[in-house]
Amino acid sequence: MARYTIGIDYGTNSVRSIVVDCADGKEIGTFVFNYPTGEQGIVIDKRDHNLARQNPADYIEGLETSVCEAMKEAARHKGFSPDRVIGLGVDTTGSTPIPVDRNNKPLALDPKWKDNPAAHAWLWKDHTGAEESVRITELAKEHRPQYLAKCGNTYSSEWFWSKVWHCLRTSSDVFDAAYSWVECSDFVPAVLAGIADPLAVKRGVCAAGHKAMYCDEWNGLPDKEFLSLLDPKLADLRDRLYEKAYDAKTTAGALCPEWAKRLGLLEGIPIAIGAFDAHYGAVGSGVCEGTIVKIIGTSTCDCTVAPKTRSVPDIPGICGIVDGSILPDHYGIEAGQSAVGDIFHWFVHYVCESDGKLHAQLTDEAARLKPGQSGLLALDWNNGNRTILVDPRLTGLLLGQTLHTTRADIYRALIEATAYGARAIIERLREYGVASDNIVCCGGIAEKNPMLMQIYADVTGCTMRISGSAQSCALGSALAAAVAAGSAKGGYDSFADAQTKMTSVKRIEYVPIPENKKTYDRLYALYRSIHDAFGGVVASADLGRVMKDLIEIKEQQT
Amino acid sequence: MARYTIGIDYGTNSVRSIVVDCADGKEIGTFVFNYPTGEQGIVIDKRDHNLARQNPADYIEGLETSVCEAMKEAARHKGFSPDRVIGLGVDTTGSTPIPVDRNNKPLALDPKWKDNPAAHAWLWKDHTGAEESVRITELAKEHRPQYLAKCGNTYSSEWFWSKVWHCLRTSSDVFDAAYSWVECSDFVPAVLAGIADPLAVKRGVCAAGHKAMYCDEWNGLPDKEFLSLLDPKLADLRDRLYEKAYDAKTTAGALCPEWAKRLGLLEGIPIAIGAFDAHYGAVGSGVCEGTIVKIIGTSTCDCTVAPKTRSVPDIPGICGIVDGSILPDHYGIEAGQSAVGDIFHWFVHYVCESDGKLHAQLTDEAARLKPGQSGLLALDWNNGNRTILVDPRLTGLLLGQTLHTTRADIYRALIEATAYGARAIIERLREYGVASDNIVCCGGIAEKNPMLMQIYADVTGCTMRISGSAQSCALGSALAAAVAAGSAKGGYDSFADAQTKMTSVKRIEYVPIPENKKTYDRLYALYRSIHDAFGGVVASADLGRVMKDLIEIKEQQT
Repeated sequence: MARYTIGIDYGTNSVRSIVVDCADGKEIGTFVFNYPTGEQGIVIDKRDHNLARQNPADYIEGLETSVCEAMKEAARHKGFSPDRVIGLGVDTTGSTPIPVDRNNKPLALDPKWKDNPAAHAWLWKDHTGAEESVRITELAKEHRPQYLAKCGNTYSSEWFWSKVWHCLRTSSDVFDAAYSWVECSDFVPAVLAGIADPLAVKRGVCAAGHKAMYCDEWNGLPDKEFLSLLDPKLADLRDRLYEKAYDAKTTAGALCPEWAKRLGLLEGIPIAIGAFDAHYGAVGSGVCEGTIVKIIGTSTCDCTVAPKTRSVPDIPGICGIVDGSILPDHYGIEAGQSAVGDIFHWFVHYVCESDGKLHAQLTDEAARLKPGQSGLLALDWNNGNRTILVDPRLTGLLLGQTLHTTRADIYRALIEATAYGARAIIERLREYGVASDNIVCCGGIAEKNPMLMQIYADVTGCTMRISGSAQSCALGSALAAAVAAGSAKGGYDSFADAQTKMTSVKRIEYVPIPENKKTYDRLYALYRSIHDAFGGVVASADLGRVMKDLIEIKEQQT
Repeated sequence: MARYTIGIDYGTNSVRSIVVDCADGKEIGTFVFNYPTGEQGIVIDKRDHNLARQNPADYIEGLETSVCEAMKEAARHKGFSPDRVIGLGVDTTGSTPIPVDRNNKPLALDPKWKDNPAAHAWLWKDHTGAEESVRITELAKEHRPQYLAKCGNTYSSEWFWSKVWHCLRTSSDVFDAAYSWVECSDFVPAVLAGIADPLAVKRGVCAAGHKAMYCDEWNGLPDKEFLSLLDPKLADLRDRLYEKAYDAKTTAGALCPEWAKRLGLLEGIPIAIGAFDAHYGAVGSGVCEGTIVKIIGTSTCDCTVAPKTRSVPDIPGICGIVDGSILPDHYGIEAGQSAVGDIFHWFVHYVCESDGKLHAQLTDEAARLKPGQSGLLALDWNNGNRTILVDPRLTGLLLGQTLHTTRADIYRALIEATAYGARAIIERLREYGVASDNIVCCGGIAEKNPMLMQIYADVTGCTMRISGSAQSCALGSALAAAVAAGSAKGGYDSFADAQTKMTSVKRIEYVPIPENKKTYDRLYALYRSIHDAFGGVVASADLGRVMKDLIEIKEQQT
């Protein structure tokens, strides 16, 4: 008898629920709920580009609507019935902390606070805590270097403490009114489980470890002495957060009566521990030792795991290595590029002043060029560098332009730049003993742009594959739910078993073309010389040959 | 009684003649003749972007038509009559050598050769002799370093010997059929003077010194031993070129009966020695010690002079210092930027894929930005670097891009890049004791773009002025003709006298704004660090601060 789980994936602008067959991971129902309020559901202060807040009421409305609608579609499927749903899983963006009251109710739901942006969810891409992040980095460097070592030596403005501290400094009324703060990825499962006390919320180690400097090595969150250096009120807050965060071996709870009724599901079915979209996306794409999952969108998130049977050193420039954050009994390793799709978008919309249709035309034209033929070389830093330099204040660079350089030349150079950035991550992981031979990509760009995928294969020297599911994140959540249910209920007893059955890769694969690889090896060496010089990795660089070498390669390729 | 001279200015696509009043330099007649054959008069091989040849028949047809038509316009002017024209002057592009027969007739005018591009004029921008120029540089470096020292240590593919040697290597039939080679700037005056023997053609020191390694120090052209290293046939050719080249104290000859009749002028009036457009342009803009004339067009040519009363050292990276090439009794000093207007053209046409109208819009938008506000920094090397690196194989660079960088940001950064390039030239001249406090610009861009002029003033710290004549090159030729005629005939006895009366600057001037200058000093320091690193001037550069400093400046300016 077929069994099903539901995966619920909270993105930046919408929430998607899917109903999945546990036997093969097939999606039999899906629904996308777009957040209604504000501009694309985001509370934005037009005077401050760094501010991005979201109304948590939308999360709750979207939860009910998307699950119910997905179930309606599933109901048309032979064999499905709601009582065969054996679990739910949730993934969200992050770090997206929400200030809550003693009853775990977001402050924003209280009429008193609803018009105060600080009382809403602080969306992952909110950068208002930039100053705070710099100060946290400085203080940690001086007093707790071990805290930084696990997050690439720089604490980001996108992360938990930067945001909470910024709230304390600039909206102290909200800070004082908040009993606790809960990550969105922990909040939604707690809602489903009917947990009305922030201290009882099961916190996932994914958000805790990657964004809040949580680690078992130092007994959880940063110690009070350190937090007092930031602000004594943050040290006090520590008592109202959590002592322990959990990997996916623990569930977030069981479906409470109220939500069982609202969703038309059985009361008591397990809810998997919440995690970030990229992490459950990696699970849904089949991440395992030796496989990197690249989620390519506006930016990328690169996830892999290393078994706990051997120790993994801190890897400089890799912004997160957390025990159990992706798969239990593995270190979860997260890297990323701050802009990929966003760079192509910028070039088409801001420089070409065209609409999205131009992408197809430029791709066609760029596909006719050989590696190196444009004579161009670019850095992929238009939005800073997340890995391996961990420096948001780096910027883009393009060189090699002549009076004949075309749009398509530049477009291809920008794609190549993101491929070099991808290679830099892979090489850094390998340097520190993390195997990474198999790459599985997901996201629209990977599915729609064979030229980009071939360039990535040629530049990295790795065969590039594409996740079988177009909704890897939601699938990963559903898969986690099947593991939470266990084999006795029709699920699985391990992630490995569940991944074998429920995940796949598409038949198409992009194999490196040896002669392209050879040219790209030369170009990558030039990229690294620019990368290291402008990234400040080397104190001095000899760049006098760069432009000449590019011309030489161009002439050989023409 | 009023006296007049005629200035004849051969450009790349047309020839312009003007009739000028010797008293005040006022233009009373003008006509432009566009070359009819080929694409804009240029013989182009579509398979070879480096090839640019021109039919010398167009020069002769254009000579007659443009002078006669300009005279017709002048005839409407009270006081003018053809017998009051006391001299003619000619300037042309260069190095533009023409293969000629024993009678000084271009081979291309012979039906036998008319379809062979090698038999035509080798236009200044023909780069087919690139290989030969590299070899000449190597050989001179080894055997005659003094030859190179006067032309910035690199012999260009645009210059005389590169072209003639390339003809010998690739079209030996044409080379063998040519009795001699004559620069266009020497050829046209010789036509007017009716000189039918190449060995009798008065050669100007401007073309000889700047393009053919001619110098009195080593008795004229390169010696035969050196030329034999290139090819013994070039050593033989030396005997059929010239022993001596002349400055403007010597005339090219007197108007011959045939051309006096064709033009309706008095027989025997003097023809000034021919020179390059930029050099007579500098004369027509009032060049003198301490004044740099910048001719800003697709590229720039920067001309100044130093009196012969003190010795001027060879200046590294300045591609020409020639005794008498601009003004008699002065060293003529020529520098230049390989692309200025061409870079803006490239950006608008190739990157924005727009038409020329976009320039005005981008200029408006860019004018609203403060120095440094874009956060961008560019190198002006899309067509290589002529001065001070003398390296055609350098390419463009743009850095500082974010996801918000606009077209106008980039447009302004490109303008600023050309201003930094201009400052690098000025600083190099000053370093070697050549005064350069006063800058006079000419060309359409200088007249039409106040924003660019202000940026140039702010970046260089020099007041920028604009030549009073929009046709400085033709005016300079007419002025040289007035000097050739002498005061007894109603002209002048010295260039200084003639310049005082016949040249002017416009009333508008662009004075550096101190606070902009301060910001640009910081940006120029960053430009130099990139310039020196990628130009290979410094063996190693510390570039890790560049992007951060740009952001800091940007934040201060926003």
